Order: sequence, then structure tokens, then C-alpha cells
Amino acid sequence: MSKILIIDGPNLNLLGRREPEIYGTQTLEQIIDMVRDELPDTDVEHFQSNSEGELIDRIQQAGFDNSYAGIVLNAGAYTHTSLALADAIAAVQLPVVEVHISNIQAREEIRHRSLIAPVCRGSVCGFGWKSYLLAAKALL
Amino acid sequence: MSKILIIDGPNLNLLGRREPEIYGTQTLEQIIDMVRDELPDTDVEHFQSNSEGELIDRIQQAGFDNSYAGIVLNAGAYTHTSLALADAIAAVQLPVVEVHISNIQAREEIRHRSLIAPVCRGSVCGFGWKSYLLAAKALL
Amino acid sequence: MSKILIIDGPNLNLLGRREPEIYGTQTLEQIIDMVRDELPDTDVEHFQSNSEGELIDRIQQAGFDNSYAGIVLNAGAYTHTSLALADAIAAVQLPVVEVHISNIQAREEIRHRSLIAPVCRGSVCGFGWKSYLLAAKALL
Amino acid sequence: MSKILIIDGPNLNLLGRREPEIYGTQTLEQIIDMVRDELPDTDVEHFQSNSEGELIDRIQQAGFDNSYAGIVLNAGAYTHTSLALADAIAAVQLPVVEVHISNIQAREEIRHRSLIAPVCRGSVCGFGWKSYLLAAKALL
Amino acid sequence: MSKILIIDGPNLNLLGRREPEIYGTQTLEQIIDMVRDELPDTDVEHFQSNSEGELIDRIQQAGFDNSYAGIVLNAGAYTHTSLALADAIAAVQLPVVEVHISNIQAREEIRHRSLIAPVCRGSVCGFGWKSYLLAAKALL
Amino acid sequence: MSKILIIDGPNLNLLGRREPEIYGTQTLEQIIDMVRDELPDTDVEHFQSNSEGELIDRIQQAGFDNSYAGIVLNAGAYTHTSLALADAIAAVQLPVVEVHISNIQAREEIRHRSLIAPVCRGSVCGFGWKSYLLAAKALL
Amino acid sequence: MSKILIIDGPNLNLLGRREPEIYGTQTLEQIIDMVRDELPDTDVEHFQSNSEGELIDRIQQAGFDNSYAGIVLNAGAYTHTSLALADAIAAVQLPVVEVHISNIQAREEIRHRSLIAPVCRGSVCGFGWKSYLLAAKALL
Amino acid sequence: MSKILIIDGPNLNLLGRREPEIYGTQTLEQIIDMVRDELPDTDVEHFQSNSEGELIDRIQQAGFDNSYAGIVLNAGAYTHTSLALADAIAAVQLPVVEVHISNIQAREEIRHRSLIAPVCRGSVCGFGWKSYLLAAKALL
Amino acid sequence: MSKILIIDGPNLNLLGRREPEIYGTQTLEQIIDMVRDELPDTDVEHFQSNSEGELIDRIQQAGFDNSYAGIVLNAGAYTHTSLALADAIAAVQLPVVEVHISNIQAREEIRHRSLIAPVCRGSVCGFGWKSYLLAAKALL
Amino acid sequence: MSKILIIDGPNLNLLGRREPEIYGTQTLEQIIDMVRDELPDTDVEHFQSNSEGELIDRIQQAGFDNSYAGIVLNAGAYTHTSLALADAIAAVQLPVVEVHISNIQAREEIRHRSLIAPVCRGSVCGFGWKSYLLAAKALL
Amino acid sequence: MSKILIIDGPNLNLLGRREPEIYGTQTLEQIIDMVRDELPDTDVEHFQSNSEGELIDRIQQAGFDNSYAGIVLNAGAYTHTSLALADAIAAVQLPVVEVHISNIQAREEIRHRSLIAPVCRGSVCGFGWKSYLLAAKALL
Amino acid sequence: MSKILIIDGPNLNLLGRREPEIYGTQTLEQIIDMVRDELPDTDVEHFQSNSEGELIDRIQQAGFDNSYAGIVLNAGAYTHTSLALADAIAAVQLPVVEVHISNIQAREEIRHRSLIAPVCRGSVCGFGWKSYLLAAKALL
Repeated sequence: MSKILIIDGPNLNLLGRREPEIYGTQTLEQIIDMVRDELPDTDVEHFQSNSEGELIDRIQQAGFDNSYAGIVLNAGAYTHTSLALADAIAAVQLPVVEVHISNIQAREEIRHRSLIAPVCRGSVCGFGWKSYLLAAKALL
Repeated sequence: MSKILIIDGPNLNLLGRREPEIYGTQTLEQIIDMVRDELPDTDVEHFQSNSEGELIDRIQQAGFDNSYAGIVLNAGAYTHTSLALADAIAAVQLPVVEVHISNIQAREEIRHRSLIAPVCRGSVCGFGWKSYLLAAKALL
Repeated sequence: MSKILIIDGPNLNLLGRREPEIYGTQTLEQIIDMVRDELPDTDVEHFQSNSEGELIDRIQQAGFDNSYAGIVLNAGAYTHTSLALADAIAAVQLPVVEVHISNIQAREEIRHRSLIAPVCRGSVCGFGWKSYLLAAKALL
Repeated sequence: MSKILIIDGPNLNLLGRREPEIYGTQTLEQIIDMVRDELPDTDVEHFQSNSEGELIDRIQQAGFDNSYAGIVLNAGAYTHTSLALADAIAAVQLPVVEVHISNIQAREEIRHRSLIAPVCRGSVCGFGWKSYLLAAKALL
Repeated sequence: MSKILIIDGPNLNLLGRREPEIYGTQTLEQIIDMVRDELPDTDVEHFQSNSEGELIDRIQQAGFDNSYAGIVLNAGAYTHTSLALADAIAAVQLPVVEVHISNIQAREEIRHRSLIAPVCRGSVCGFGWKSYLLAAKALL
Repeated sequence: MSKILIIDGPNLNLLGRREPEIYGTQTLEQIIDMVRDELPDTDVEHFQSNSEGELIDRIQQAGFDNSYAGIVLNAGAYTHTSLALADAIAAVQLPVVEVHISNIQAREEIRHRSLIAPVCRGSVCGFGWKSYLLAAKALL
Repeated sequence: MSKILIIDGPNLNLLGRREPEIYGTQTLEQIIDMVRDELPDTDVEHFQSNSEGELIDRIQQAGFDNSYAGIVLNAGAYTHTSLALADAIAAVQLPVVEVHISNIQAREEIRHRSLIAPVCRGSVCGFGWKSYLLAAKALL
Repeated sequence: MSKILIIDGPNLNLLGRREPEIYGTQTLEQIIDMVRDELPDTDVEHFQSNSEGELIDRIQQAGFDNSYAGIVLNAGAYTHTSLALADAIAAVQLPVVEVHISNIQAREEIRHRSLIAPVCRGSVCGFGWKSYLLAAKALL
Repeated sequence: MSKILIIDGPNLNLLGRREPEIYGTQTLEQIIDMVRDELPDTDVEHFQSNSEGELIDRIQQAGFDNSYAGIVLNAGAYTHTSLALADAIAAVQLPVVEVHISNIQAREEIRHRSLIAPVCRGSVCGFGWKSYLLAAKALL
Repeated sequence: MSKILIIDGPNLNLLGRREPEIYGTQTLEQIIDMVRDELPDTDVEHFQSNSEGELIDRIQQAGFDNSYAGIVLNAGAYTHTSLALADAIAAVQLPVVEVHISNIQAREEIRHRSLIAPVCRGSVCGFGWKSYLLAAKALL
Repeated sequence: MSKILIIDGPNLNLLGRREPEIYGTQTLEQIIDMVRDELPDTDVEHFQSNSEGELIDRIQQAGFDNSYAGIVLNAGAYTHTSLALADAIAAVQLPVVEVHISNIQAREEIRHRSLIAPVCRGSVCGFGWKSYLLAAKALL
Repeated sequence: MSKILIIDGPNLNLLGRREPEIYGTQTLEQIIDMVRDELPDTDVEHFQSNSEGELIDRIQQAGFDNSYAGIVLNAGAYTHTSLALADAIAAVQLPVVEVHISNIQAREEIRHRSLIAPVCRGSVCGFGWKSYLLAAKALL
């Protein structure tokens, strides 16, 4: 049975409570459950943190643990400001797929540049919670 | 039976012959066939052109024809230079999903800005021919 | 009887169907007819294309045909991206007047720079379909 | 009988004496008279000042006087430097049309950006003194 | 009894009539009266002008009159374009506090840069008419 | 009795020991005590951290705890680099007021842009420890 | 007998009629004939179009037809705006030499950047019609 | 007897009182007197205003009064922000020489660009009050 | 016996495992041991964290502990994004030397700007693990 | 017998020894000899220097010596940094042709801008040593 | 008897022969003689070189020779590109005055920025050969 | 016995006499002697020039002389403006280490970019004369 890790960055723990017209009404827990339902043959682990350092720690741990097929990463605002996160992704051997719930290119200019995109395998954005599901399928 | 339209822009007709280390070895026809195989219940139409004007014409035609569920669009280099294509997408009611075979954020800087992204529903990039399949699934 | 040519660029064939809150509810055909009604002593020809090349072809043809008093040009999105169109305008002897239905300076930044403005005689923008009429009067 | 106000900014009082190859040989008084001749059914008021503050004062006065159909404004160099003038235009309910005698897009780069354009109804430029006339007609 | 001077720049005389969703419904006179009510032990003088030169004149006069404790300055749009106003503030010995009714950082980009901020003692913005009151208290 | 939360970001725990010519000689604890003395009817809570993640955590906690009237936030250097902090402020319903001890517009250019300003209610800066007091009063 | 293809982009069909002080008085046909006269042992084919799409089509066709020694390309204004043309050149195996009649570096700034230069073998510019001849010799 | 006009812009009336380490300790009146002493055969007129509009008015008046040999202009901060002043200088036939007391290139970046320099005959800066004298000599 | 502190930022704990063609094959522990071997008379403490906040905490602690001669800091990617780290260095009295294993000026543009360099005593980069040793010697 | 001068700038004396994958294996002397062999009826003089000043001296000498038909100039890195060299070319009456062995547009961005191109007659680049030969032919 | 040194940079030895519509018809020798005639009580030394290094050498020599009152420097194109020249000026104690024959602010943009201006005492430009004379007087 | 070459660029011959608060009080000769004292087993050659061309000449000579272990280069202001120097470093096989006496990142912005850094082995800056010693040790 294959295993993937979904990592969520800052403020994504507020999903369902935060600006629902942009991010939808589902909580993060509900989203992960829906992904698990859609991928019954996959072990879907989940990790969320508001701390850049903890996100890097978690990526490193997964990167040197041979049990994962890959990481689905929604880095939230760190997508646009964290070079350290990009370095962590580049340093590990695991494929990482970038996801976003909203279409970041349709938002403010500061959200158009992704520092992590160049070191990710690919990206999926704009499909609400289904972005996670499509990214997971792309990894598998 | 639902119907989608896959539109490919300039130089994508060379897939399989053009820089295979970036774009892979499958021809565009093979890619479309693989998508059709994976989506047996969907009518997958396909259109390719090197002409910006013809791509706009085709998007307009599909946009005012009520039979499509949406468009999967790989605009190739026009992604980065065609505001007219973006206007066409904004003008029609159909959802359009942007796809790219390669991870455009990992390439030259001129390919980092997508003029069409803000008016698309979402985007999928970096997964080779599977980008088309994931985008089609996102539409359905 | 004097003769003028009105040329419309990409997506203007969708007028009346495309974002009516920006572009109004009249179709392009209705607009041209209204201009003709207002200018009963003028032969008003009309041409629309989504293709940059065809627009250049048409400007060249009119430019070396001695029968026109001038061109009224709504180049749509090519206003902002087509240096080739600007070269065609500069190359012909006919006066060309730039028109826009909406006030392009009040829209996104990419629409603030007009590549064709420096080689046009003048410009009229922001008056809905009457922009065409004012521009035609300016030529006559 | 409808009434409009034509406002001219800095250095336009020198028309006819200032760089005639750019601005023509007519004086500002002659231009206003020609506009009045062409619009016999309209009460055309006129105001010129080299002072940014006085221009703002005059726009405010007209804006809260219910007798005007609109303002034709040639803000001269303040077009490119006065955010305060733009704020005055935005603050009043009257439609304001921006005019320029020359084609400002064909001049130095600093004259390409108009701070007032986004808050005007529309603009007319490049037709010499007829720019005023076309703008007045657009208002009426 | 201490004395302060409140100076208002261009278009602030329209408060209450100008875009109330941004600036509120109180007139400038009402605002000054409310500040006076809150500061019964302070002599609150007030000056408004749409003219950059008159604002500079007034700052200079207050600056070399030893009776003021400081100036509360809402320079309106001149905040972003007037280096001469900044020079006047730097030239006088009086402390000057910058105020804004709205949160200028949340508005258009051109309003994000304040030329006068570096020479002011401090700034208060975003609290409606209470910005004036807080600034006056900061001076006292 | 109303309650507010004062949050301080990186290096503000060094107040009184760090560059006193810029930041003054009072310690952070002394500043908070002075604010409490001035606001005897308000419950003033305080939190300081050098960690971006912990600051986000704290804002989220306060944001979904109905007992606060608002947050006074001195984000220190994160003011200029943390989009994630801005997202947290935007996500919660509580009004947040930005404060700075020094006048950041008079310092290096990198400190002129505030990423959090657009999502705060308002800002107070340049008044030393009294910036906190004025901001607290603005919230109440 | 070796064969080369000369491709001309937008507005070059107007040579001899368009701004002769920049482009000279020879027509495009005369130029091609002069090149043929100078290269009697070479089969010189010629293609001109104002359409970006047709230029791409023609480069692709030549690129996968083994009979050409190379392409001499004067892309006109598309030199500066067409990334799609650059992609076509990169995609084919044929050497392509960029030519310009005028010295583009001595003209407006927008003509200083060539999008196609990086993927061409080399470039020749500024020698009038002889630019074509030198480029052809470079290929042979 | 020849006549020149010295014009001073905003805040220069504060000379001697304003930042003497930059501008010196002489008042503007003293400076003009010293220039008059050095040029006994020249009629030296003087004008100072803090108002951009009044400065333009005065330049226009001198420009169309045939009695002046030229203008010595210290535009103060308007040097860097007033395109209208530059237009006035370009519009009149009189030679205008730009002066500055301090070396503006050694000050903040916003003072490095002079909008009026391109339309002045020449410039003299950095020599304290002697800048006026040298400029006057250059005119004579 | 003198004491120094070596601090390593994000992802440096992966040394030896991360992109060895850039960073070499030694682990961070091996590097510190080699530095200790070379400096037998110095007490070399070491701290590594992926968290910006913990790095700031550690710099502050060392800064107000009188036992250190200085800090050798390899801030990894935070070198380029953390103004808060720079503030911490500026706030403490200890000399800090910036080190990098690779030559950051030869890498991507985002790594050319160091936010911490201006507040460090000096920098050493490009010598692999010996960068640490040279920096330590510079401190001693 | 006509005479031309070939001038080579900094580091071109290392040809054949310097990065042969970019610049080829021929020495500069061999290149000049090959050009002489191809142009038996032309007197080909040659000059190389690493000094900007000496290159300017030599251009000036040739420029005021009536015996030359023109100059072939490979300015090496000074192409991108020497405005003084450009001034020398502009000052002399001789036609100068810019050459480069490699395709500079395909290299780092700093090599994309040529300061000397605007004052040269034309340019030839990307054809290895044959760039010199083609440039010489263009001059003759 | 006081002594000054006039230093001229690249291509100024061509004065009288180089673009006389910009630089006038006098040779450099004639200009220096005219300055000497006007300043009979001053020992005017002169030095010209096209070499940046020799100019620096000469400034250093004069700087540490106590016999000079100052240097009049026309650095030609090095004005805009030579930071090393600026460092030499800053390093010596002698006052240096920058001169230009033409008004450099009215020429191409690259000539608007002077690297040496910030370290010069002042500047005089636009008065033809009299710029040298005025600068010399300013020094004396 | 190993041999290294220390090369110093423009104005470094003034060390000890030039701005001692930045560069210290030791002369260049004293610095080199101190380095020789610290490295008794190394043959330390030294070369200084104010001429870019001579510096390039010297680097080339050392580069093709097999006796050197490497070069320690303090290029002074040429660090920031000389691409030709960078090309020389790239062309030779010898390792080159960049040094600076002061911390260039803490100075003006123009000194933040090093053109030679990308082609050097590494860099050492900010440690006064010890920068030379550390760089020499790094080479050995």
C-alpha cells in the first residue's frame, strides 16, 4: 500500500472559517477525509503548521524516510516568501507537488511568484479541495 | 455523454520530435489517444494551431456552442505573450483549464508569467502528458 | 463621397455577448450601422479579424489603395502587444485613429500602454460605441 | 440650453505662441471661439490657470453646481504629475473628458502616463483644437 | 493653554460630500469641532487649501511663530507627490504629525509612498476622523 | 471590562537594550506596564515571540476567542517580510492596529513597505512607547 | 546544389514603399533577386507572411524537410514579441540566421531585445539588403 | 544696461534659517544683494514664491517681455517634480540657467533627477550663493 | 580559553546528504569537528535550527552572555529573506561573521543579495567547510 | 588596394586558450591570417589591447587617417560597459562593424546590451572566426 | 600665483573635429588658451587622456601635491561609467569641479547619471567652452 | 616553496592616506609585508595598478605561468564595473580569491554587486588587512 504525505502551511488550519468566498466552506480535516475516501488504497498522512521551521523539519523527515511516494504541499503564503522551504524540497529526493485551493495567478501580484515552483515536480491550482486530490493522483 | 475540447497552441504539433528531454517522446496524437483511453465516457475533441487568431476563433466557437463541459488549453508560448487569448477566455462562459507538459516555473524567466492564468479556472503543469488527463478530470 | 475603413481586432466580434457591463449590449454590426446612420454621406467599410496577420494585411491593402480618407482602428488586445501592427500603421500613408469602447486607462495595468498610439494620428476612448463615431468625424 | 465648462491647465494660455509645430498657431481664445461657433446651442464656459490649486478649486465649484453637463479638461503637464487633480475629478459627480491637442503617446515617456485618465469618462487626443470640439460633443 | 494647528490639503474640504464609503459622512468643519470638543484645553487652529504653495506658506508661518506645540497635517494627495511640502516640514522646527482618514496602504499603489513621512515625527492613519484626535493627543 | 491583546514580534524583547537611540530606553515590560497604567479599565494581555509561526498561532487563537476588542501588533521586521502574518490578520474578524516605535518611513528603504498594513484597521508609528497607547485607544 | 530558405515577416512585403530612409528603395523581390544573382550555385527559396502562425508553419515544414542547408530569417517586428517563433526555431534542427536591414540597436528601445536571437546560430544586421547576402554566405 | 531675472522656488525664502549646514547662513535677500554687488552693470530682478503656478506665471511674463537677457532659476524641490515648470521654460524664448546651492547629486536619490535640466541652457550647482553669481555670469 | 558560537540555519543539517556537488560530502557534525581540531585552544559551540525564530533566540542569548568572542553564522536561505535575523545581529554587541560553503554570487540571482551582510563584521564564502575555519580565525 | 583595420579588445589575445567550447580553438593570429587569406586584395591591419584607453587611441588614429575603408571591431567585454568607446566610434567618420565570435544574445543577460551597437554601421555575430570575415566583406 | 589643473577625459582631444553641432568648433588647445587668457593670474595646467587609469593617476598626483587650488574635471564618458574615478576624487583632499560642454541632462538617458557628481564640490554644464572658465572661477 | 600573487586595483595605492576611517591607517606596502611575515613559507608577489588594462594583462600573465598557486585580488572599484576583468579571471586556470578591506555590503548600493564574484573561487571581506591574509590562507 503506497503512502503519501499532505503538508499544509500557515493559516490553512483555518479553512472553512477563513474567507469562504475564496477558500470554500470545508475544513482542512474534511478535505483530507475526502481525499482519503477517494484514494482508498493509499495511506494519506497529514501535517499542518504555521511555522516555516516545522514545515522544513517535516519535509526533511519524510525525505529521508523511504516509505513515501511523494509529498503534496500547500505552502500557503510561504509559497511566495520562503526560499528555505524551496531549499528543503530541492534537498530531498522525494517528488513534491505544489497545490493551491484558489487560482493564485488571479490574486494580488505578490502571490504570482512561487519560490517553490521551480523545485517541485509540478503544480495544481484553482480547483478547491480537488486540487489536493488531483495532486495526489499525479504522484501515484 | 459529456464533451470536452482540448486545444493546443504553437509548436505542440511537434511533440515527440521537439526537444524530447523537455517534452517527452509521445506525439500529440498519441497523447490525445491516451487521454481518450482514460476517459472512455467522454467525447474528447482536439484542435491544434500555430496561429493565435485561429486559437481565438476556436475558443469563441466552443464558447457559444452549448455542448462542451469545458476546454483544456495548452497555449504553448502564447501563454506568455497573448493578451488576446486571455480576452477570449474571459469572454466565453466555458471553464478553461490551463495545462503545461513541463514545469514552466522551472524554465526561463519569460515563461514564469502566464497572461491566461488569471482568467482560467485553474492550472495543471509539470506532469508530462498526464497534465492533460488531470486537467480533463478537473473539468468533469 | 468620402470613404473610411473601420477595423476591429480580436474578440470585438463578440460585442454584445462579451462582458456587457464593460462593453455594452450592442453587437458590432449594430454599432457599425449606427455609425453609418450618423454619417449618411460617408462610405463606411468594416473589417474584423481575430488574426494579427489579417489585420496587418487589411491595413496594408487600404494603405496603398487611394480611395480611403483614413482608418478607424480598435485593435483590441493587440493594442498592447503588437509591434507589427504599429509598423503597418507607420508604413502606410493613411491617417489612422485609435479607438476603444472602454476607458483602457481605468483597467488593468497591462492595458495602459498602447504600442500603436505613437504611430496613430490621435485616439478616442471611453465613450462606448460613440468612440467609433467621434473617431470617424475626426478623420473627415 | 446645456452648459459645459472647458478647463485648461498650465502653459495652455501660451497656445499660438508656444512651439507651434506641436501645438498649432491658434491662440486659446481662438480655439474656444471656434468651439462656441460649432456648438451654437451650448453655453461654453472657459477657465485657464497655471495653478494646480486653482484648477482643483474650479473643478470643485463646477462639481457642486448643478448647472453643468460636464467638463472638458486639458490639464497640460499636470496630467502626468497631479494626483490631487485626479482626486478632485473622482470627488465630483460631473463627467469629465480628458483632451490633449497633441498625441501625448508619441512624445516623451513621462507624458505617456496620465494620472487623471482613470477617473475621467473618456479621452480625446491628437486632433489639434478639434480635440476640444470632439470632447464637448462626447459630453453632450 | 497650548495651541496646535491642523492643516488639511487638497479635496479635504469636500469631506462628507466626497466618496463617503471611503471618507465618512462628516464634513471637515464637523471633524474639527469634534476634535475641539475632545480637547477643551487646547487651542485648535485650522487651515485648508487646495494649493500646494499656500500649504507651504502656512507651514512656514507656523514654523517661525513660537506659539504652536505642533502641526497635525493631512496633506491629501500631496502626501504622495509634493517634495516641496516635505522640504517645508524639514525646514521648520515644529513637530508635524501625518494623518490620514483612510488606510492609505490598503488603497492604490501610488498612495503607498509618502514623501512627507520621513520628515514627520510620526503618523496615524485609518481611524476616520479619530485619526486627527489621536494625532493631536500625540503632539500634546 | 474590555480586553485587548498586544503582540510584539522579533527582537522587541530586547527593547531598552537594543539601539536605544532608535528605540528608547524602556524595556518592553515597562512599556506594557505604562500602557496598563494609562488604561485602568482595560484588560491588557501581552505576547511576544521571535517566531513567525507562534505569532500567527497567537493571532488565530485571539481571532476565534470572542473576548477581545482587538489586537495591537508591532510585528517588527516581519512587518516587511511576512505575507503569512498578513494572511492571519485577514483571516480573523478582530480589528488589528499596526504600531511601530520608530518612524519606519524615515529608515532604510526595505522598511518602507508594510505587508500587513493593507489588512490592518489602521496604523500608528513614530511616537515611541506612546504608539502602543494611542493604538490601544484607537481600538477602544 | 545546396538550398536555403529566406523567410520574411510582417511588413517586409512593403520594402521599397515603406519608410525608404530606413529600409532603402529596393522591393523585397528585387532583394531576393540580387541575392540569387550573387549565389548562382544555391537554390534560394523565399517566403513572406504577415502572420505569426504562417511563419511558424513554414519554419516547421523546412525544419523537417531534409533538403535545406538553413534558414535566413528577417522576422520584422515579431523579432521582439514572438516567443512562439523562437520556440519553432529551437524545435527544428536547421541552423537559422537572424537578419535585419537596419541596425535595430540604433532604433527605439523596444527593438533592442530580440526574442529569437538566443536560439539562432548568429545574426547579421545593419547592412541593408546585403544583410541577407552575408547571412546566406554564413550558412553555406 | 542688461537685465536678468533670478527666480527662487519653494522654501528658498527660508535661506539662512533652514538647515544651515546644507544651505549656509545667508538669507536670500543677502544673496541677491551680493550678486548685485558683483554685477554693478546689470539690473538684477528677483522673484520668490512657494507656488508652482506663480513661478510659471512669472517665467511666462519674463519670456514674453523683451527686456531680459535670461533667467537664473533655483526651482528648489519643484526641480524634481514639476513638469509644468519645464514646459514653461521650453515655451519661452529666454535662456534659463538652473542653479542649486547644494550639490543635489550628493543628496537623496529623489533629488538626482531634474525635470527642468533638459530644457535649460545649462546648470551650476554646489557652490553655495556663488552658484547664483556664476549662473548670472554665464547668461551675460 | 576563548569561546565562539557557530550557528547554522535551515537545511544545513542535511550537509553531506544534500546536493553534494554544491555542498560537499561532509556532514555538519564532521565539519564542526574539523574546525575544533584546527582550533584546539578554542571552545567551539554549535547550534543548528531550521526555525528563523530559534536562530534569533540563540543569537540574542549569546549576545547578552558575556562569554563569547563572536558568532560564525551560516544563515542558509534566511541570508536572503530574513530581516528579523539582521535585526537580531544589529541588536547584539557581539561581532558576527557571515559564512557560506558555496560561492553564493555564482548561483541564482535571489542568492546574490544578503540581508544580513550589512550588519555583519565581514564575510567568507566559497571555500567549502574551510569557510567556517577562516571565519573563526577572523574572529579570534 | 583597400585597407581595413581589425581591432580586438580585452582577453581576445587568449583565443585558442580561453574557454574553447565558446570561442573555438584558433588563436587570434590564426584567425587574422585566415581573414587575410580570404581577402588577398585587402590590406588587413590588426590591433589588440586589453586597455580601454588604447583601444580608443587606436580608433581615433584610424579615424583621422584617410587610408582606411573601415574598422572591424570585436570589443569583447567593453562592448557592454564602455560608453567612451562608443563615443570614439561616433566621433570618427569611418564606418565601424561590430563582431562577436559567439552569439552574445544567447549568453548571460549582461552581455545582451551593446553600448557600441547604436553607433556602429552594423553587426555580425555568432559565426566563430567567420564573423570577422563577413564583417570585413560588409565593409568592402 | 594660484595654480589649477584642468583634466579632460576620453575623446575630448577630438574637440573641434568631433560632432561640432554638439561640442562646438574650438579645439581643446584653443579652449585651454582662452581660459588662460581670461585668468592671467592663474597657472592653468592641463592634462588629457583616453585612459581611465591615467586619469586616476593624474588626480592622485595632484591630490598629494600641495601646490594646486583644485581640479576642473571633464571626465567625458567616464562620468557615467567610472566608479574608480569617483573613488580617486573622494580619496584626495583637493576640491574637484565637474564640467561638461554640453547639457548632459538633455542627451541620452545613460548620460543623465553622473557617478562622479556626488564626490565633486559642484558642477557646471551646458555653456560650451565657458563651462571650463566658470568652473575655474568657482575654484578660485 | 609555493607562490601567490596579490593584485590590487585602483586607488588601493592610497591606503593609509585615503579615508582611514573606512580603510585603516596601514599603507599597502605595510599590509603586504604583514602578509609576508605571516606566511614565511610562501613567495608573495604583489602588483598594483589603477589601469583596468594592466590588471587584465597581469592576470593573464600569471594565468599562463605555471608557477602560481593562485591570485588574491582586491579589484577596488573595478569589482563593480569591469566585466573585462571578470572575463580574464574566467579565462585563466588559476584560482582567484576576491578580497575587500571593508564590508562592501554595508556601503552604497552600487558596491553591493560584484561582477567578478561569480568567477572567483570565493571571497573574504570586511576584516581590514587581515582579509588579504585569510584569502592567501584559503588559497594555500
